[in-house]
Amino acid sequence: MTDAALTRLRDALGPAISMEPSALESARTDKSGHVSATAPLAVVTARSVEDVQATLRIADEFRMPVVPRGAGTGLAGGAIAEAGEIVLSTLAMNRVLELSPADELAVVEPGILNGDFNDSLREHGLWFAPDPASRAISTIGGNIATNAGGLLCAKYGVTREAILGLKVVLADGRLLELGHRSVKGVSGLDLTALMIGSEGTLGVIVEATLRLRQLPRGTVATIGAYFPDVRSAATASAAITAAGLAPAVMELLDAASLHAIDAYLGLDLSSRGTACLLVQTDGVASAAEADEVLAIIRSLGGEAESSTDAVEGERLLAIRRAFHPALEAQGTVLIEDVAVPRSMLPEMFRRIGAIEEKYGIAIPTVAHAGDGNLHPNFLIEESAPGELPQVPERIWEAAGDLFAAALELGGTLTGEHGVGILKRRWLGKELGQDQLALQREIKRVFDPRGILNPGKVF
Amino acid sequence: MTDAALTRLRDALGPAISMEPSALESARTDKSGHVSATAPLAVVTARSVEDVQATLRIADEFRMPVVPRGAGTGLAGGAIAEAGEIVLSTLAMNRVLELSPADELAVVEPGILNGDFNDSLREHGLWFAPDPASRAISTIGGNIATNAGGLLCAKYGVTREAILGLKVVLADGRLLELGHRSVKGVSGLDLTALMIGSEGTLGVIVEATLRLRQLPRGTVATIGAYFPDVRSAATASAAITAAGLAPAVMELLDAASLHAIDAYLGLDLSSRGTACLLVQTDGVASAAEADEVLAIIRSLGGEAESSTDAVEGERLLAIRRAFHPALEAQGTVLIEDVAVPRSMLPEMFRRIGAIEEKYGIAIPTVAHAGDGNLHPNFLIEESAPGELPQVPERIWEAAGDLFAAALELGGTLTGEHGVGILKRRWLGKELGQDQLALQREIKRVFDPRGILNPGKVF
Ligand SMILES: Cc1cc2nc3c(=O)[nH]c(=O)nc-3n(C[C@H](O)[C@H](O)[C@H](O)COP(=O)(O)OP(=O)(O)OC[C@H]3O[C@@H](n4cnc5c(N)ncnc54)[C@H](O)[C@@H]3O)c2cc1C
Ligand SMILES: Cc1cc2nc3c(=O)[nH]c(=O)nc-3n(C[C@H](O)[C@H](O)[C@H](O)COP(=O)(O)OP(=O)(O)OC[C@H]3O[C@@H](n4cnc5c(N)ncnc54)[C@H](O)[C@@H]3O)c2cc1C
Repeated sequence: MTDAALTRLRDALGPAISMEPSALESARTDKSGHVSATAPLAVVTARSVEDVQATLRIADEFRMPVVPRGAGTGLAGGAIAEAGEIVLSTLAMNRVLELSPADELAVVEPGILNGDFNDSLREHGLWFAPDPASRAISTIGGNIATNAGGLLCAKYGVTREAILGLKVVLADGRLLELGHRSVKGVSGLDLTALMIGSEGTLGVIVEATLRLRQLPRGTVATIGAYFPDVRSAATASAAITAAGLAPAVMELLDAASLHAIDAYLGLDLSSRGTACLLVQTDGVASAAEADEVLAIIRSLGGEAESSTDAVEGERLLAIRRAFHPALEAQGTVLIEDVAVPRSMLPEMFRRIGAIEEKYGIAIPTVAHAGDGNLHPNFLIEESAPGELPQVPERIWEAAGDLFAAALELGGTLTGEHGVGILKRRWLGKELGQDQLALQREIKRVFDPRGILNPGKVF
Repeated sequence: MTDAALTRLRDALGPAISMEPSALESARTDKSGHVSATAPLAVVTARSVEDVQATLRIADEFRMPVVPRGAGTGLAGGAIAEAGEIVLSTLAMNRVLELSPADELAVVEPGILNGDFNDSLREHGLWFAPDPASRAISTIGGNIATNAGGLLCAKYGVTREAILGLKVVLADGRLLELGHRSVKGVSGLDLTALMIGSEGTLGVIVEATLRLRQLPRGTVATIGAYFPDVRSAATASAAITAAGLAPAVMELLDAASLHAIDAYLGLDLSSRGTACLLVQTDGVASAAEADEVLAIIRSLGGEAESSTDAVEGERLLAIRRAFHPALEAQGTVLIEDVAVPRSMLPEMFRRIGAIEEKYGIAIPTVAHAGDGNLHPNFLIEESAPGELPQVPERIWEAAGDLFAAALELGGTLTGEHGVGILKRRWLGKELGQDQLALQREIKRVFDPRGILNPGKVF
């Protein structure tokens, strides 16, 4: 039966389907560090909506599982495939179909990289606000499927706020058009919002109508602040929010993060403090806002400098950007992603400290402090050469404590990375069994045979 | 069986259930002008989540239809009830349960009026941005159930952007908690977003966690502009958007609207032009933005004045606020609510002109020009005394042409008022039959026995 299905797929897709070992191998993993035990059956690199429809029609007929995939930069294992599965990549569908500066919208295929798309907008004075740190390497389709956030989203919103409409292919190959080109609309249930963040479990996104913004006017001011301890840095960030300031960027780095970055970049940031807060204000009032931010930081024991020089601003943000590579240089990393109400940031850092003590491990943590989203990182000892990296049960236990703390403080398991396979076992704790059952039934409405990304999320 | 059900409801709810003719009578209508043919069975005025759960448990057991209702200001007939139905009002559940300035959030019961809630926030320097023109008389629960928009939503977002979490009672009486207190979160499908705008068909909202904003700083500048014709006013509003300006308010009134307001307020606005554009800029850059707006208006043939005086600003906005009462003074009104991409505003006004000619009627139209949302109004001849006002088929035909035009231009049947019963017959045209069928199946997941607001939306 598998042979019959593959023959049908080959006939329908021609060179778009591959069973090359290297293609199969790379679909076993994403950037979560997790690797599936076995390789998938085939990889379809769709070139058109018709390719996506053909793949799903045949998969539906043969009840073969299909794993949608963008650039594979996900951190939750959502795009990972295993034996018997067809990987359906939308990476090659990467055209801009329309750009309307007058309506501040664009229509794009899902495979375009966020960074490439934004580069093409700059000459029009426009931008697409969602800015995951992975923007240079992740697709807009993947950003939508995970409802990606980023450094700027406290001020400019997450991906959900930037999507007007979607074209989606359902599990049986039918094409749906959701949403509209107008900025408002309330006709029927909001299925566009339901698709955003659905991690490939409800349908395959084949086109998106994006809401663009005008590039902010005025100069950008960047502040680098150092504190004697992480809780006072967290208190300062909470105070900046509570004062009604809305910085474009507000990133917090703890002592372990600064140490890793020092080692990686050959700097000595740690001598200036054990926690760092990076703040950027933009817009016409950026200078006045930066002054207020500085005053709050200093009143709470921080040492800070502000600059409106673009090069200096870039240098300060480069510190934050070096964080992931700095940790990766030390070994395999499990990047966690809890979020709490912003006033709970200091308390959450206290809880992380307690978990570090209990398990005798370091948990270098950075936070998008403007929206209460923390990325605590767990370093995993290198596996023997040739062995797959595995997250040890002890680390999962520590992560479990972390999730419990975030939920207890009114937050969530995942602020922006999603559930994928890595957080499935905790999802019921956050949603409750009634809601989880309801979500599963909604999944069944979209995908009655359960062929879309099975074993993910639910 | 009905008697048995009513006995059970009376036992469970005591004085919260009423069968007074006046209570039943007022639930036959809302502000759409539509009146149901018969009166409902009973009205439950819930005082607590338990009242809502008890009502739904019993209704579920006896398969009795339940119509959720807030303040009854809806314009789509969504809260209208008829024979055999139980009206479930959340109007009396109107407490603020929590206010957290530090986290810029509040937890409220659904029955609180939007205006009352905003009044209570002012002393904290905060506000809840969704501002339907009905804010003084509509509930936050109703605003959420319809995803209400308002004058300020082009800049500050619709209701969906201001909701962090919801507590919802399902059709069988179970209580679900959706969303979280953190500003970000992507754990599982976004059922909070799915509930917003679901018009009482998926569950009863019994609590909401709202995202608040700091009151904007700086002064507000208000501009009143008059144009020789409506298309040049529409062109000016589209040019203001395209220039990257984001006014807080941008309202457009056509000739017929100005005539009605003149008659109602005893003014002579019509002598100044045949179309009016009201623009407000706010924030620290408001004065500079107002200058740019003025320049665009004048370059496109408008005559305009700008003021930063609060009283003068209020006087200008009062013109817009007088629009609904001015029309109501002339007879029964069908308030329509299409939306188009903003660049299509001039073309949409051309189409409305053509429909006026074809049917030999006037269609006074105002628009939230900043987001392309138009309210064309149809005046209905007074019915004989004692008779129910009815929208004549000829007016529905003209409205049908209007909807077709909006869809053709990439827009929607309804920008903010919802589908209710008034737009059911057109919904399939916008969504397509596949999507409509899928939406109905989702409705069945939430409400397998079809007892929640039957005959509405779908
Ligand atoms: C260094 C680094 C930094 C990162 N920073 C951030 C950050 O700041 N914020 C953030 O939110 N994330 C971040 N991420 C995670 C990741 O980049 C995002 O989740 C991104 O949105 C994934 O896009 P992708 O194209 O790589 O999708 P993939 O990893 O290929 O897929 C992700 C999920 O989306 C689904 N999917 C992909 N394409 C489609 C489609 N067309 N239709 C339906 N489903 C689809 C997949 O099935 C999977 O479940 C980071 C990752 C790295 C490696
Ligand atoms: C003069 C005037 C101006 C208006 N201006 C605007 C405007 O600018 N923008 C705009 O969007 N609307 C406007 N409206 C329409 C109306 O005020 C809004 O739709 C409002 O959100 C309805 O709130 P309500 O409490 O009156 O709800 P209702 O009319 O009682 O109900 C509306 C819908 O919500 C459902 N519902 C109500 N409460 C609940 C609950 N607790 N749980 C589940 N479902 C519930 C009902 O079943 C119904 O389908 C205007 C109306 C008038 C009369």
